[in-house]
Amino acid sequence: MDTNVGLGGLRGETGRDARRRIRAGGHRAPTSGLAPGYVQGNLAILPQALAADFARFCALNPKPCPLLGQSEAGDPRLPMLGEDLDIRTDVPLYRVWRNGELVEETTDIAKHWRGDLVAFVLGCSFSFEEALIENGLELRHQSCNSNVPMYRTNIACAPAGPFHGPMVVSMRPFKPVDAIRAVQVTTRFPSVHGAPVHLGKPEMIGIGDISKPDYGDAVPVRDDELPVFWACGVTPQSVVATAKPEFCITHAPGYMLVTDLLNSRLAVL
Amino acid sequence: MDTNVGLGGLRGETGRDARRRIRAGGHRAPTSGLAPGYVQGNLAILPQALAADFARFCALNPKPCPLLGQSEAGDPRLPMLGEDLDIRTDVPLYRVWRNGELVEETTDIAKHWRGDLVAFVLGCSFSFEEALIENGLELRHQSCNSNVPMYRTNIACAPAGPFHGPMVVSMRPFKPVDAIRAVQVTTRFPSVHGAPVHLGKPEMIGIGDISKPDYGDAVPVRDDELPVFWACGVTPQSVVATAKPEFCITHAPGYMLVTDLLNSRLAVL
Repeated sequence: MDTNVGLGGLRGETGRDARRRIRAGGHRAPTSGLAPGYVQGNLAILPQALAADFARFCALNPKPCPLLGQSEAGDPRLPMLGEDLDIRTDVPLYRVWRNGELVEETTDIAKHWRGDLVAFVLGCSFSFEEALIENGLELRHQSCNSNVPMYRTNIACAPAGPFHGPMVVSMRPFKPVDAIRAVQVTTRFPSVHGAPVHLGKPEMIGIGDISKPDYGDAVPVRDDELPVFWACGVTPQSVVATAKPEFCITHAPGYMLVTDLLNSRLAVL
Repeated sequence: MDTNVGLGGLRGETGRDARRRIRAGGHRAPTSGLAPGYVQGNLAILPQALAADFARFCALNPKPCPLLGQSEAGDPRLPMLGEDLDIRTDVPLYRVWRNGELVEETTDIAKHWRGDLVAFVLGCSFSFEEALIENGLELRHQSCNSNVPMYRTNIACAPAGPFHGPMVVSMRPFKPVDAIRAVQVTTRFPSVHGAPVHLGKPEMIGIGDISKPDYGDAVPVRDDELPVFWACGVTPQSVVATAKPEFCITHAPGYMLVTDLLNSRLAVL
């Protein structure tokens, strides 16, 4: 019996609790709302031959690719993110790629594990969205019960080896005074995308039609609102897809790795 | 001989140096650029009968009216802003008002001093502008060699006794990425107006024509720029003018009080 599941639902669930349920097959859904207060991350697993270049890509592009943890080659553990964490079983849905082609969606990658694989976990916007909500700001895509709209931009990432491509951004509309507060709040979280990269004037970053996102769902932007753009964790996925590595494993969109880190501890101030 | 004045001009001048020159009649011009690094302030001197309400007005409206120092009634010193400071002689140009009418511009208010007067010194945007410039941002009104454009808004200040009226804002145009940086930089300086109160969409705060400021000079806002609005120290002057106190002394616009406080020490982080 899970004593955390009661009248309060899963609000008392820890990151470790969530991973344990996922590992046992008890949660096969997107992870939004799981283990409130705990950091969730994007996953990219690459062969060691590409790992140094990918690590360098993350270091060069910290806003779209904020590195939270990196495993040793062949080691499925990431103790800096969770003592018991096993990257082969703790994500509810994985995608397996060969030469840039999606070949399988699976809940367990034990059979794909190799002695040369390196796992990278990158920060995700769930962390700063929690802080925005705590500040009384409305997230339009949550009000619409949809996915956040994301766009490929004309902002080039700094390349590293085979990894290159445009920055992908997520968009949240806010009234100007709330946009200013959103800049302040997210500035405190540099390890999960940090401050916006742009606001207003979508055409300046190559977005021709705000109502047609490249990923996720469109949301209304009202006349008294500005679209505010943050660097997005879809960027590394897009970049990895472009590099077409011979082998690669990622999480499925929305099915994140839940860690033991606390969102509040990521705040620099 | 003033050893600070050499090849480096006045760059090495302290706040105290500047006040000494002003007091001796050696500087009868606006104070922009004087004593770089030192805080300059707006001045309002009111009879004690109005002082409590004005202090409350400042406390209720800290963004337009950030109080840096307040004298005791009848005492022309403000030791918290400068050990030797004498508010009767240390501002290069004063304005004397009776019943809301400007009756005199003068360089010395000793003859007007009364035992019931209270001096208020409020932060000014020079402090945060210095920080913006240090961050490599262009201030358009400086490039244009003009005064910053200022606008009366539809944002009502919280009233206190006879003091009430709309917030006045100053406007600086920036590219979106620089506007985001400007929010971050000025957030660090809450005692000198702090973060912007608005950006983009001037009509939302009652500004019908950005090319027609109510005070100062118009500056161009380019297609790839957003107008960014900060609460302005003209607000208390406008509010005092509206309240029409029987007697009041202010600085003349641009002729500020130079203090011993360091701009860098106003940063909260």
